[in-house]
Amino acid sequence: MAASIIDSSIFQGIFSSDEMRHVWSDENRTSKYIDIERALAIVQARLGLIPQEAADEIVSHCHLDQIDMARLSQQTERIGYPILGVVTQINQLCRDKLGEYVHWGATTQDITDTATVLQIREALAIVDRELAAISAAMAKLAKEHRDTPMIGRSNLQQAIPVTFGYKMAGLLSAIERHRERLAQLKERVLVGEFAGAAGTLASLERGAMETQAGLCAELGLKQPVIAWHTIRDNIAEVGAFLGLVGGTLGKLSMDVKLMMQTEVAEVYEPYHHGRGSSSTMPQKRNPISSCYIHAAISVVRQHAAALMDAMVADHERSTGPWEIEWIVLPEAFCLMAGALKQSRFVLEGLQVDAQAMRRNIDMTEGLVMSEAVMMGLGTHIGREYAHDLVYDLCRQAIAEKKPLLDLLVAHPEIAKHVDRKALEGMLDPSNYLGQSGHMVDRVLATLR
Amino acid sequence: MAASIIDSSIFQGIFSSDEMRHVWSDENRTSKYIDIERALAIVQARLGLIPQEAADEIVSHCHLDQIDMARLSQQTERIGYPILGVVTQINQLCRDKLGEYVHWGATTQDITDTATVLQIREALAIVDRELAAISAAMAKLAKEHRDTPMIGRSNLQQAIPVTFGYKMAGLLSAIERHRERLAQLKERVLVGEFAGAAGTLASLERGAMETQAGLCAELGLKQPVIAWHTIRDNIAEVGAFLGLVGGTLGKLSMDVKLMMQTEVAEVYEPYHHGRGSSSTMPQKRNPISSCYIHAAISVVRQHAAALMDAMVADHERSTGPWEIEWIVLPEAFCLMAGALKQSRFVLEGLQVDAQAMRRNIDMTEGLVMSEAVMMGLGTHIGREYAHDLVYDLCRQAIAEKKPLLDLLVAHPEIAKHVDRKALEGMLDPSNYLGQSGHMVDRVLATLR
Amino acid sequence: MAASIIDSSIFQGIFSSDEMRHVWSDENRTSKYIDIERALAIVQARLGLIPQEAADEIVSHCHLDQIDMARLSQQTERIGYPILGVVTQINQLCRDKLGEYVHWGATTQDITDTATVLQIREALAIVDRELAAISAAMAKLAKEHRDTPMIGRSNLQQAIPVTFGYKMAGLLSAIERHRERLAQLKERVLVGEFAGAAGTLASLERGAMETQAGLCAELGLKQPVIAWHTIRDNIAEVGAFLGLVGGTLGKLSMDVKLMMQTEVAEVYEPYHHGRGSSSTMPQKRNPISSCYIHAAISVVRQHAAALMDAMVADHERSTGPWEIEWIVLPEAFCLMAGALKQSRFVLEGLQVDAQAMRRNIDMTEGLVMSEAVMMGLGTHIGREYAHDLVYDLCRQAIAEKKPLLDLLVAHPEIAKHVDRKALEGMLDPSNYLGQSGHMVDRVLATLR
Amino acid sequence: MAASIIDSSIFQGIFSSDEMRHVWSDENRTSKYIDIERALAIVQARLGLIPQEAADEIVSHCHLDQIDMARLSQQTERIGYPILGVVTQINQLCRDKLGEYVHWGATTQDITDTATVLQIREALAIVDRELAAISAAMAKLAKEHRDTPMIGRSNLQQAIPVTFGYKMAGLLSAIERHRERLAQLKERVLVGEFAGAAGTLASLERGAMETQAGLCAELGLKQPVIAWHTIRDNIAEVGAFLGLVGGTLGKLSMDVKLMMQTEVAEVYEPYHHGRGSSSTMPQKRNPISSCYIHAAISVVRQHAAALMDAMVADHERSTGPWEIEWIVLPEAFCLMAGALKQSRFVLEGLQVDAQAMRRNIDMTEGLVMSEAVMMGLGTHIGREYAHDLVYDLCRQAIAEKKPLLDLLVAHPEIAKHVDRKALEGMLDPSNYLGQSGHMVDRVLATLR
Repeated sequence: MAASIIDSSIFQGIFSSDEMRHVWSDENRTSKYIDIERALAIVQARLGLIPQEAADEIVSHCHLDQIDMARLSQQTERIGYPILGVVTQINQLCRDKLGEYVHWGATTQDITDTATVLQIREALAIVDRELAAISAAMAKLAKEHRDTPMIGRSNLQQAIPVTFGYKMAGLLSAIERHRERLAQLKERVLVGEFAGAAGTLASLERGAMETQAGLCAELGLKQPVIAWHTIRDNIAEVGAFLGLVGGTLGKLSMDVKLMMQTEVAEVYEPYHHGRGSSSTMPQKRNPISSCYIHAAISVVRQHAAALMDAMVADHERSTGPWEIEWIVLPEAFCLMAGALKQSRFVLEGLQVDAQAMRRNIDMTEGLVMSEAVMMGLGTHIGREYAHDLVYDLCRQAIAEKKPLLDLLVAHPEIAKHVDRKALEGMLDPSNYLGQSGHMVDRVLATLR
Repeated sequence: MAASIIDSSIFQGIFSSDEMRHVWSDENRTSKYIDIERALAIVQARLGLIPQEAADEIVSHCHLDQIDMARLSQQTERIGYPILGVVTQINQLCRDKLGEYVHWGATTQDITDTATVLQIREALAIVDRELAAISAAMAKLAKEHRDTPMIGRSNLQQAIPVTFGYKMAGLLSAIERHRERLAQLKERVLVGEFAGAAGTLASLERGAMETQAGLCAELGLKQPVIAWHTIRDNIAEVGAFLGLVGGTLGKLSMDVKLMMQTEVAEVYEPYHHGRGSSSTMPQKRNPISSCYIHAAISVVRQHAAALMDAMVADHERSTGPWEIEWIVLPEAFCLMAGALKQSRFVLEGLQVDAQAMRRNIDMTEGLVMSEAVMMGLGTHIGREYAHDLVYDLCRQAIAEKKPLLDLLVAHPEIAKHVDRKALEGMLDPSNYLGQSGHMVDRVLATLR
Repeated sequence: MAASIIDSSIFQGIFSSDEMRHVWSDENRTSKYIDIERALAIVQARLGLIPQEAADEIVSHCHLDQIDMARLSQQTERIGYPILGVVTQINQLCRDKLGEYVHWGATTQDITDTATVLQIREALAIVDRELAAISAAMAKLAKEHRDTPMIGRSNLQQAIPVTFGYKMAGLLSAIERHRERLAQLKERVLVGEFAGAAGTLASLERGAMETQAGLCAELGLKQPVIAWHTIRDNIAEVGAFLGLVGGTLGKLSMDVKLMMQTEVAEVYEPYHHGRGSSSTMPQKRNPISSCYIHAAISVVRQHAAALMDAMVADHERSTGPWEIEWIVLPEAFCLMAGALKQSRFVLEGLQVDAQAMRRNIDMTEGLVMSEAVMMGLGTHIGREYAHDLVYDLCRQAIAEKKPLLDLLVAHPEIAKHVDRKALEGMLDPSNYLGQSGHMVDRVLATLR
Repeated sequence: MAASIIDSSIFQGIFSSDEMRHVWSDENRTSKYIDIERALAIVQARLGLIPQEAADEIVSHCHLDQIDMARLSQQTERIGYPILGVVTQINQLCRDKLGEYVHWGATTQDITDTATVLQIREALAIVDRELAAISAAMAKLAKEHRDTPMIGRSNLQQAIPVTFGYKMAGLLSAIERHRERLAQLKERVLVGEFAGAAGTLASLERGAMETQAGLCAELGLKQPVIAWHTIRDNIAEVGAFLGLVGGTLGKLSMDVKLMMQTEVAEVYEPYHHGRGSSSTMPQKRNPISSCYIHAAISVVRQHAAALMDAMVADHERSTGPWEIEWIVLPEAFCLMAGALKQSRFVLEGLQVDAQAMRRNIDMTEGLVMSEAVMMGLGTHIGREYAHDLVYDLCRQAIAEKKPLLDLLVAHPEIAKHVDRKALEGMLDPSNYLGQSGHMVDRVLATLR
């Protein structure tokens, strides 16, 4: 019986992904605790801080299947945190009181934070892979449709032609920047925590920094420059990153939704029988993935703010702010996994209707080419004057429902400078794609 | 395997409650779908819109245990929404194609929204009950400690005495306003939805409004004045309400945390062995519930903003904004159930140390009585002049670490007007509780 | 030189309104401080707590033009709060030290909070008036277009017909609920604050509650049941209310933007020469007001969350949370004034193109009438079977670009039950407006 | 008459700074527009796209003092955007219609976005400088108090000793990471925009990319890889960065507030006469700057979410989301300037009371040394057993109000292994500072 959307047996596959849910599951989190306790014992035995025999015994019991999860749950509700329960259970599994060397010099938050970082590492690997796949799918669309004309829209008004490849390349440029951000933040985020009750490692009379260094090395994490129990810019940066990625996916879904409108009908989410069907309106072709993306990322950006709130921690170990992360991190990652999955699905199977795109360019009978005409006339009669003149003719064309070409040809001042043929050329969209293709090439050239 | 904190087998009892999680579970939500389809069939048969035989057959299959949840999950992922799956399953359970009358004239969102309202009704009943319990606990504390002096604090500085009952009564006044808000919003929120594809009920050639009225009556909901598929102020108001309640619980937890500080030590969360213990610092008496409250309500206020975002719906059925509610509502209610439960636990078992409160009043050797002295002297030498004079003597008392009384007595200008005995009276906290008790009485008098 | 958008000499008229900016101006806020100090002196003299001569002298100097604003600014930066500066200035203006009776028994926050409430009262009056005007404009549109058919849209897909009046009535129902909310919250919010340093009014040895009652009465506010220096649900409720109203305006602007799309072209924001023009694309008819509304309300919902954050106040006078209100309240109200103004402008001058609406209904050659057909056939061949059949024919119509009517007529199973004429009737939108008009009437009937 | 807090003549110096307000002023923004139009003319003349004579004439009028700001304000309200007004004014200032070459090939958003980037560059320079100053002040405190013992606190409970330098070094490590983030994001953000109506630069038949490259070079910005009119991860990243920095300043202010508590009294904000004084409680020493910091950064993190919202832009030029940036960016930067200024002020003048810190360590008569004792005994009797034993003795010490030392000495099991002298050593805080000093050194070593 799940109450959250990401754990709902009905919705989990829509709003998240199995692998991301696994990362943040009780099982995986507890596994990480155990991995860390094991690594700690190994390192401390190597450094001579605890007996090798104790380490061996501890290691032999550091397996998830030896933990009684039901008992752990009870212990957690009683104590408030699960670490002490895990430590107690491992300890009790060990023979001859050797288990008393488990968790040596550590504090609850050391284990929890390091486990979180290990989970973040797994989660970011998924994000990274999905971003790469999205990048590839966008690049493919950008290449294929480098020169497929469609109308560019400004303020939801048809403006001037662009290409569909250009539209994809713009999004792609953001995805590539997100990948760069991800690479940069990993350096700051994939850092272990091992610092003791107030971060000073006073709990280890000797071998403190060596244990910290060894533990981090064992786990493949960077060693922290200082304890970060209440210095949480790293975690909040992860949230901000997810929020930023979400913004780009939100823009993608917004454009897909708008292009799928009945009146626009330029692209479609991948179709299979029944998908996006209504129980009452069989003609509809609903954007489904785009809805889920929109919703997920709208929540994730609020999570980003919540994680910044969690930075306002008190003293050496905080009283409430830390737990904000417990709530928000799993959910933000799970929702993002859903949004990434849905985005990738949309992009990898997107149906692009180039004919419909061309039909939409033509629907205003030339009005969308007014800038082209204005620029073309500008060299003859001055840009601002051309602007005002074309502006008025466009209004006239709208009011009288006449093709712009006819009005242009009939205008005496224009006729002085250019003839119908030249005006037809100015009104041809394929002559006015500007640097669309070139910009696609520029973006593709940045791909790793 | 749960990924969210509210479904985590380790944390669910801390951050939520079983009963609230049940309200938002797949099972209960699906039950509500079925309840509504059943009520619809009953009402439509009564109105002669569908055959009574069909209604009887449908009703006989409207039971959760007849639904194949695994299959429903697959159908949902394929279609994007669970309603059609439920309808199809009920239909197929019925003999002789009588099931084709299920969901007659309804659209997916009618069932979903009405189910959500039924869930909200159950959820608000829990909130209401918890608020009542919190109100009772606060009232008890306010009464018991109506005259228990403690130092009032302003800007985290000791200011002048108040009573602990006064502190509780202030919070209580907010809880009572929340209960009033809840009663008022129920009138707007506990409203059914039955309106068809675009809200016009065109799907029912006759008996449309009668069906709507009958269905709402059957479910104990108010009839809507118009379809609200994309008019979501009601849902967002629920989120705002939870955010406001959260703010009050946050203030409670903030004060408890601050009063539990080692250096303050005036109140304690209820204690049982091991609770709030650290794995390394046995002397600590950690605020546990207060941390959870703080974290939960910090997230809920972000949810409130997300639900306002969900109001920006497009046209007659929205494309993404609606799904924000799916994510946020269950989580906001579940987290609030946790925060309410923890708040109630804290209040019902709060340990109040009146002696420590008195000790803290006395720790500045009179400085916190400076306003009393200032006001007392004001009648003799003018308020602003008295202010400046006492202000300077306080600084001197701090600098020279002398009791304020001695400096006051020694001051020639003061000595002209009042003697040591009068000054001692001015410095007695029990003479300077002002309207603390009276205000407690005023608040208690407002209780229903 | 203004840095904020609401004070920008370029943008202030777009994103706010002069009258709302005046409410939150330094001048008006300082005026309110003075009004309160004056009322306090009057009341306390009446109660015999201060000499009548002092009150008269104080009152004679309680005028904004006697305050040196530049000096006040310096005092504020030095002290951190402006009240003491105002009090000092009034005091110094008074003869014979009579000014020492100003601010008698009050604390900084008493004056600030009460001033804020007075500003909120003025601000809510503006909101109230604008909501009434918006309600009237929506009601007018709902009435005029009660029966103007347009296509209803679900998931941005054409669904089934509605009327434009129905669309307006839905929004109108929310505006009316907002007016109800406003009336209800005023009872909780328009409450004075006068409670002294820690809320106990210990500063007044006698006449404390009488002063509080008298001051509130003098200012036309309700008397508080207890001090609310750190009990801020009232202020946060105002923010939540603005966020909720914003959500409705956001939905309005979303629909207007979408309906103004070149490909849709059903309504237009009011036009005057140059408005919404592009410097380069003369044909465009940009939604301008809708953009401003969208942006303003997106920020205001974040403000709502910030004001809930401000509720997490510490002890009797908070250390930071309170100042969140100082930042957020003026801005939220000013942005909302802009959004309300722009919404009203849009609604009062909205250009509705009923012909274009009809053209859009017809563009799918019958597909949007599929539900009507499905329901019509349902009585003959069963609803779910009719659904599947029509669903397939719709797909065929799309694939083969044929009118749905022709495919329906040609289908043998359908032909058995209904003829072309009956099918034509099913496909006529004016036969399928359902309860659109009736629902408009229901909403209009709720207007006060 | 200003309504916003950052433009308020009373509060502007508290919540912002003059230089940051100047960056976002109407004057500076308009100056940037003019700078860009001038640079554009220069570059296009150099490339032979417009006559040199025209460029010279344009350049001669590209001065802020030639712009009629009042007229610009009117034009903006009429059109909705200020750029066309500026272009028109420059054009009209030019002789012989040479002004028609101004803004050649550009669109409104090109100028606006590039101006925003130029403002961001100036604003980030201020942020950078303030971060450097804060870093220096923290480093100074970390060095000076490398070995000044104070109690470390966990869950607002006294835990084990740390040093004040260690506390500062933790914050410093975050500031250094923020500086690294800032350096990295500048590469992505300080990029020009010049792309025409839909981003394709179709408006320039020739020299399009050369103009773009030249313009960016002229302004000292990077050339974009593709138009970013609706690809706003760069702007949102700036907001996220400010939110993250805010989180760190919030943590600083939280700790200062808590350490300034009457009951703690370990550090003080810089003092001058009257600062932080109350109008009624002369003894108080209020944290003033900390309050402002707390409030400002609480709002800025919501701004960060709003800027992520602004990323959900539609098509090639967005319809509302863009304007979110107009509202939020100036305010977020102005509030952060205030928070940075206040933080720097606090840090550069912070009064540290080492004696009080020591007094607080000693107030529990040894309880805070329990971990030290536990670790010390652990080597003799096993860690977990020692934990349980010390845990119980601590509870006994609390209950019986006895010094922990006495109970330890009296315990038979302990007495077997260690004597009073050894126990006294374990209880000496200066023996239990752990790696505090070493960690300070590690952080200081990372400074550039």
